[in-house]
Amino acid sequence: LAENFADRLLAEMREKKSVVCVGLDVVYDKLPEAIRTDPDLNDPADTQVAMDAALEFCSRVLKVVAPHVAAVKINSAFFENHYWDGVEAYYSLVQDAQSRKLPVIGDVKRGDVETSAAAYAAAHLADPTFENLQEGAAPDAVTVNPYFGADGVRPFLDVAAKQGKGVFILVRTSNESAREIQDFADASGKPLWRHVGERAASWAQGAGLVGKSGYSSVGAVVGATYADDLRVLRSVMPKSILLVPGYGSQGGTAADCAAAFVDGKGALVSASRSIVYAFNDPAYNTRFDSWEKCVEQAAIDMKNDLNKALGA
Amino acid sequence: LAENFADRLLAEMREKKSVVCVGLDVVYDKLPEAIRTDPDLNDPADTQVAMDAALEFCSRVLKVVAPHVAAVKINSAFFENHYWDGVEAYYSLVQDAQSRKLPVIGDVKRGDVETSAAAYAAAHLADPTFENLQEGAAPDAVTVNPYFGADGVRPFLDVAAKQGKGVFILVRTSNESAREIQDFADASGKPLWRHVGERAASWAQGAGLVGKSGYSSVGAVVGATYADDLRVLRSVMPKSILLVPGYGSQGGTAADCAAAFVDGKGALVSASRSIVYAFNDPAYNTRFDSWEKCVEQAAIDMKNDLNKALGA
Repeated sequence: LAENFADRLLAEMREKKSVVCVGLDVVYDKLPEAIRTDPDLNDPADTQVAMDAALEFCSRVLKVVAPHVAAVKINSAFFENHYWDGVEAYYSLVQDAQSRKLPVIGDVKRGDVETSAAAYAAAHLADPTFENLQEGAAPDAVTVNPYFGADGVRPFLDVAAKQGKGVFILVRTSNESAREIQDFADASGKPLWRHVGERAASWAQGAGLVGKSGYSSVGAVVGATYADDLRVLRSVMPKSILLVPGYGSQGGTAADCAAAFVDGKGALVSASRSIVYAFNDPAYNTRFDSWEKCVEQAAIDMKNDLNKALGA
Repeated sequence: LAENFADRLLAEMREKKSVVCVGLDVVYDKLPEAIRTDPDLNDPADTQVAMDAALEFCSRVLKVVAPHVAAVKINSAFFENHYWDGVEAYYSLVQDAQSRKLPVIGDVKRGDVETSAAAYAAAHLADPTFENLQEGAAPDAVTVNPYFGADGVRPFLDVAAKQGKGVFILVRTSNESAREIQDFADASGKPLWRHVGERAASWAQGAGLVGKSGYSSVGAVVGATYADDLRVLRSVMPKSILLVPGYGSQGGTAADCAAAFVDGKGALVSASRSIVYAFNDPAYNTRFDSWEKCVEQAAIDMKNDLNKALGA
C-alpha cells in the first residue's frame, strides 16, 4: 500500500524544518531577463517556446528552493493558457519537482458531478496508466472545489486512499470577493465557509485517509488573508492539513499564518510571486547579482519568518 | 464589435426550431463497435489513438445531429484524462463543431482568484493569440464555478463582453449531493443556490453583456433534476439563458425542463449519454441498423419532446 500523503508531507516538513510551499505561477513577462533574451527562448507568441522558457525558469527555481521548502504548488491555469503544449509542460514540471523529492500539489481547482469528477481525478491525481506516456507524472495532491458536494469529491478521495495521494478542499479562499459567496450565513450566523469546513472535516475521516500521524490526506485551502476564520477552521478540521495561501504579496503575515498550526504542525504556507519573482524586488536585487540567489534568499527568509512566528 | 453571444444562441435556436444542446462526453468503452474494432483506432491504452477514435466518433455525431441541435457542450474532463493529446483533441473538436456553425460551450467548470481566472479565461474562452497555433479554436462559451465570487468571474465576463462570448455560472447543479452545499440556507430560508442565482443575475447586467434580444451573455447552469428550484431561478435570473442538464439519463423530463422557459425562449436543454450513446439503447438499436441513425433519431426525439412540452 502506498504511504499516506499526510504522513509523507509531514515528514518532509520535519526533515526540511520548513512549512513553506512554493507556488509556481509562471508569467513570461516576469521571467528573468537572462531567460527572456535567450535566443532560443525569446518568442512568447509561440506556445512551445514560451513553455520551454517556463520550464527552464521553474527548473532553476526548484533547484535553489528545494532544500528550503516542503512542497511545490503548480498552478495549472498558467500552463493551460498555452494549450496542449502548456499541458505537456505542466506534467513535465510535476515530474521535475518529484525527481527532486518534492511533493507536488496540482493547483487545478476542479469540481464536477461524479462521472466527470472521476475523469478529472484520473487526469490530475491518479498515476497515469496509458502505455504510450513516456514522460510526465501526476501530482501528489490536487485542489478541489466543493460546490458539488460529496459525490463530486468522492472520486478524488478514492484515488487518494488507494494511491497515497492528497486532496485539498477549497474552503476559505484568499481573495477579496470570497466574502460574496462564502460569507453567506445560516440562521445561527454560521457562514458557508464554516459549513464547507465541517463537510470537509467529515470527508477527511473517510476509509484509508487518516495516516499514522493522525492527519488525513484530505486537507483544506484557507487563506491567510482571513486570519480570524483561519483560527476557527483550525478547530473545525482537526485532522486536516491546511494549505494557506495569501502570505506575502497578498498581505498575510507570519503571525496570521500561525493560527493554522497546532504545536507547529498541521499546515503548509504557500507563496508564489513573493518567492519566484524576488529578483524583481529591490529588497533582494540590490543585494544579489544572480536572480537565483534572490529566489533562494526569499525562500529562506519566508521559512525563517514562519519558523520564528511558530516558535514564539 | 463581435455579435452578442445570447443573441447568436437565440437566433440559432429559432432557426433550428430546437432548444437542444448535445453534450459530448466521450468514454472509449461506449463507442460504437465499428470504431472500437477499426485497426487504426483499437488501442485505448494509447492517448493518441484513443483521442483519434473520440474525434472520429464526435465528428460523425456532429454531422447527424447538427440540423437538430442549437449548440454543443464539450466536457473537458473526458479529454483532460488523455493528457496533452486529449487537450489537443478537445480544441480540435471545438473547431470541428464551429465549422458546422454550431455554438460550442466548453464545459470546463473553472473558477479561481482573479489573476488565475484571467489565465483560465485566456485558455478556454478568448480567441487564441499564439502565432504558432494553426489549428484548434476556443469555445463560444464556458461554464464557470461561482465559489470565488465576483473577482473570480470578472475575467470571463471581460472576454465575453469584448469577444461576443458567453459564460454559464454553475448555480444549481444536477447531482444528488448538490443539496449538501447548495441547500445551505440563511435565516429567511433562502438557500445558497438562490443567493448565487441573485449574484449571477447581477453579473449578467454588466457592461456590454446584454444583447438586442434582452438576454445576457451571462447564463446559468440549473439542473432539470430540481424542477421546483428551476422555476424559482427562472424568475431570479430574468435576463439569463439557463443551461439545463439532467434531461434523459439523469431523470429530468420535458415537463420539468419547461419551467426554464418564458414564451418558449431563454433556455437550452442539454443531454449527453441519452443522445450520443442511443445506439446502446434497445429503444433505438432495434429500429435502426446504423449507429448514426440511432443518434440522429434520439436528437430528433428530444427536440420534438421538448417542443411539445413548450407548445403545451
